[in-house]
Amino acid sequence: MEDKLNKFKELTAEIFDIYMAAQVLEWDQQVNMPPGGAEQRGNQIATLQRMLHTKTISPEFSKLMEEIEAYAGELDPDSDDVRLIKETRRFYDQRAKVPPEFTAEFYKTISLAYAAWEKAREESDFKMFQPHLEKVVELRRQYAEYFAPYEHVYDPLLDYFEPGMKTAEVQAIFAEIRPQQVDLLQAIAEQPQLDDSFLHLAYDEQKQWDFGVEVITNYGFDWERGRQDKSAHPFTTGFGVNDVRITTRVDRSYLPTALFGTLHECGHALYGMGINPAYERTPLADGASLAVHESQSRTYENLVGRSMPFWEYFYPRLKEFFPAQLGNVDLGTFYKGINKVEPSLIRVEADEATYNLHIMLRLEIEIALMEGTLAVKDLPEAWNERMQEYLGITPPDDKQGVLQDVHWSSGYIGYFSTYALGNLVSAQLWEKLIGDIPDLTDQFRRGEFGALTEWMRTKIHIHGKKFEPHELVQKVTGSKIDPAPYMKYLRTKYGEIYDL
Amino acid sequence: MEDKLNKFKELTAEIFDIYMAAQVLEWDQQVNMPPGGAEQRGNQIATLQRMLHTKTISPEFSKLMEEIEAYAGELDPDSDDVRLIKETRRFYDQRAKVPPEFTAEFYKTISLAYAAWEKAREESDFKMFQPHLEKVVELRRQYAEYFAPYEHVYDPLLDYFEPGMKTAEVQAIFAEIRPQQVDLLQAIAEQPQLDDSFLHLAYDEQKQWDFGVEVITNYGFDWERGRQDKSAHPFTTGFGVNDVRITTRVDRSYLPTALFGTLHECGHALYGMGINPAYERTPLADGASLAVHESQSRTYENLVGRSMPFWEYFYPRLKEFFPAQLGNVDLGTFYKGINKVEPSLIRVEADEATYNLHIMLRLEIEIALMEGTLAVKDLPEAWNERMQEYLGITPPDDKQGVLQDVHWSSGYIGYFSTYALGNLVSAQLWEKLIGDIPDLTDQFRRGEFGALTEWMRTKIHIHGKKFEPHELVQKVTGSKIDPAPYMKYLRTKYGEIYDL
Repeated sequence: MEDKLNKFKELTAEIFDIYMAAQVLEWDQQVNMPPGGAEQRGNQIATLQRMLHTKTISPEFSKLMEEIEAYAGELDPDSDDVRLIKETRRFYDQRAKVPPEFTAEFYKTISLAYAAWEKAREESDFKMFQPHLEKVVELRRQYAEYFAPYEHVYDPLLDYFEPGMKTAEVQAIFAEIRPQQVDLLQAIAEQPQLDDSFLHLAYDEQKQWDFGVEVITNYGFDWERGRQDKSAHPFTTGFGVNDVRITTRVDRSYLPTALFGTLHECGHALYGMGINPAYERTPLADGASLAVHESQSRTYENLVGRSMPFWEYFYPRLKEFFPAQLGNVDLGTFYKGINKVEPSLIRVEADEATYNLHIMLRLEIEIALMEGTLAVKDLPEAWNERMQEYLGITPPDDKQGVLQDVHWSSGYIGYFSTYALGNLVSAQLWEKLIGDIPDLTDQFRRGEFGALTEWMRTKIHIHGKKFEPHELVQKVTGSKIDPAPYMKYLRTKYGEIYDL
Repeated sequence: MEDKLNKFKELTAEIFDIYMAAQVLEWDQQVNMPPGGAEQRGNQIATLQRMLHTKTISPEFSKLMEEIEAYAGELDPDSDDVRLIKETRRFYDQRAKVPPEFTAEFYKTISLAYAAWEKAREESDFKMFQPHLEKVVELRRQYAEYFAPYEHVYDPLLDYFEPGMKTAEVQAIFAEIRPQQVDLLQAIAEQPQLDDSFLHLAYDEQKQWDFGVEVITNYGFDWERGRQDKSAHPFTTGFGVNDVRITTRVDRSYLPTALFGTLHECGHALYGMGINPAYERTPLADGASLAVHESQSRTYENLVGRSMPFWEYFYPRLKEFFPAQLGNVDLGTFYKGINKVEPSLIRVEADEATYNLHIMLRLEIEIALMEGTLAVKDLPEAWNERMQEYLGITPPDDKQGVLQDVHWSSGYIGYFSTYALGNLVSAQLWEKLIGDIPDLTDQFRRGEFGALTEWMRTKIHIHGKKFEPHELVQKVTGSKIDPAPYMKYLRTKYGEIYDL
């Protein structure tokens, strides 16, 4: 049986080599590839994906996995081997349960949908995108059927990104925080608005880049095992725990874009770099889920990167980079400026206090679309109504409303809620963390982030995808995903900033 | 049969997608990868190579190819389809004739040999490398046996890089030019030496880069279909005819390194960009051979890039980039400086008049090693004797002698002569080219290189690997590979420069 387990691991390793190779091609496509390369790159990635699929669902692999699973019953259910087998089964089922013809049709559909969305957004015309989205929704519903029985048709979609999470759970969590978030926002709206005009000046691009690099080096980003590049949309990817790459974009006339983008992606990267190297070439060499991943990016971007102790250390340094722009801006003013709350139309530009509301709106819409209680044609209206209800503003057009995000055109339904869940998890971890390291914020004031990152590494990173997210959160914090710490964090922070 | 041909093309396309994907991973490894990524990158590339191998030698593909070959007999032997089938057969045989265990052992051997060579070179101690090279030579001899019968044991090695070329042919060519090259060198040695001290000043790296970019943009390098990066060793690669990438390295205190490196790789890149797009995803989407490839790089680097008409246009521009360094250096002095002839120990730094001598020495040694008439242990002595005989200098140590090149440690035996053959072909093409475009050098004086590149595209680039090199050279120049034009070129050029 030891031999079979080794053979199983060998085949898994090959599958993940192909998986990683495809990641390299995709990274290159977004970071380096000249425009002319697009067509052949599409062919190359498609061929790798096809081989990955074929190898995963091969009868040889399937048979071996069944034998190993029978044997796994005798082992410690929390052992790496058993968890590896379980996670590989999940990886297998996601591919084997879906007929190849369906997958082919799905990829064809989203390829057309993406092109249509780009054009529709440019012209701010939802009608151009509507038939494509209808098809996407239909195919996603069909996809869910391959994973029947389920409690809710949205469950299989959610589970793809957030293993073990149920629609009812997310709905309950969001139902709890929505009124609290709306209340907080209204309280803030009644206060005088803060000044952040100094963030909208001309900032030298290279200096922005250099400052970000300095900060994440302090965070513990290991340049021997990673790099940063520029791309149109910031993202993090990795081709092994020792080669993790982030990207950022630099806006010459708005300081926060590059800086907080870099800090955010660095949080993802530290996760990737901290995974147990023994999990290389297996499905365990990944984050536990998108929400847990987002808890890391949000921690380093917001809970640390937008906190006063952080800036007590870094603000004098930032002023050295930008004396002309910030010379007359004191620390308190700067701190308030980067934490200004303002209901806005665009999710990716939203502040901490409004962000989750953007997500809730999307989740409700996605669930309604999947249930069939909302028709795609009625989507813009539903979107705008909720924007008014939650954020108090109405998009002037579809470009700044329902057409703003790429996700649906790429077939991602079930993804959005992980952003909000990540916020909640970040605050839960934070409560535990400052309990374990009482002088943590004093360390930040000295520019020291080693203990922070070491704690995250030991509690979260090292486990990779060994545990399901709810299991991991329970293990570390002693409770399931709980919105209370995040709401408390928001109320405390903005209570001070806005003098509530 | 049309169906079978389509199926054949489809399988070939998949094989070449994997081939290109592996190239992307290798490019990234040399250009971007952080050091930590090495181990997993090795696994990823190995897995892709194994899949490429398995897919190529699969019974399905083999059977299909045989059926297609039978059918090809009825078609025009010069048609793309027939040539595609022929080249795919070559690609197949190179893999299918070699047992997998041999290939595994070979890769293991060169992996160790490369590490040993790096260390041996650092310590200038051939003995450390000797046992590894003995093993490499033994395995290359064994490799040749898989392609028996042959006229000469070196033939299969040569054929791998230079399809159709025979050892006896290369020996005959080199025997013809060796005494002429030695004579020329001696005549130059009797003349007063030229000054090139102005090339050894401090030159700003970014400006060096920018000037190179300006030149190759004039050459016709298409930035929509290519890019340039930095790497330790300059090289060109491509992932399709619309994504061709070059690298260069910049030496702050020696101007020619980056500049001529960029021009050289641009020659390779123009070839890659000029191949018939209909050959994408087939073995025809490649250069005819290494020698033909080198004829292109040498043309753009030397025949154009070190010529007086080129500098009549570009020297004023270069002076704008570097007024402090070149302000007092007139065009004639500059031209002579970049064409200074000086016997030197290191091949990659050799000038046009001595370069081929470095190659001949290597070819003779390789053939003797393969024949068994030279033992690996006697190699340093054989090397040093020939250096003295051909170039009049003796390396002070192995580092600057027999250990200087990476090729043997990587298992490349049969590669070197293509560099010299490329020089010869470049001059043959040149004679034809200036016959076809009488005002070509006047165009250069105006900074116009469009007609040059268009001629190369039509005569050479477009055909990709459709024709064997001797066939292509014959087709374009009306004769086989002939050393006379190159010797004439050298004698004319250096006759003027050194007043012979």
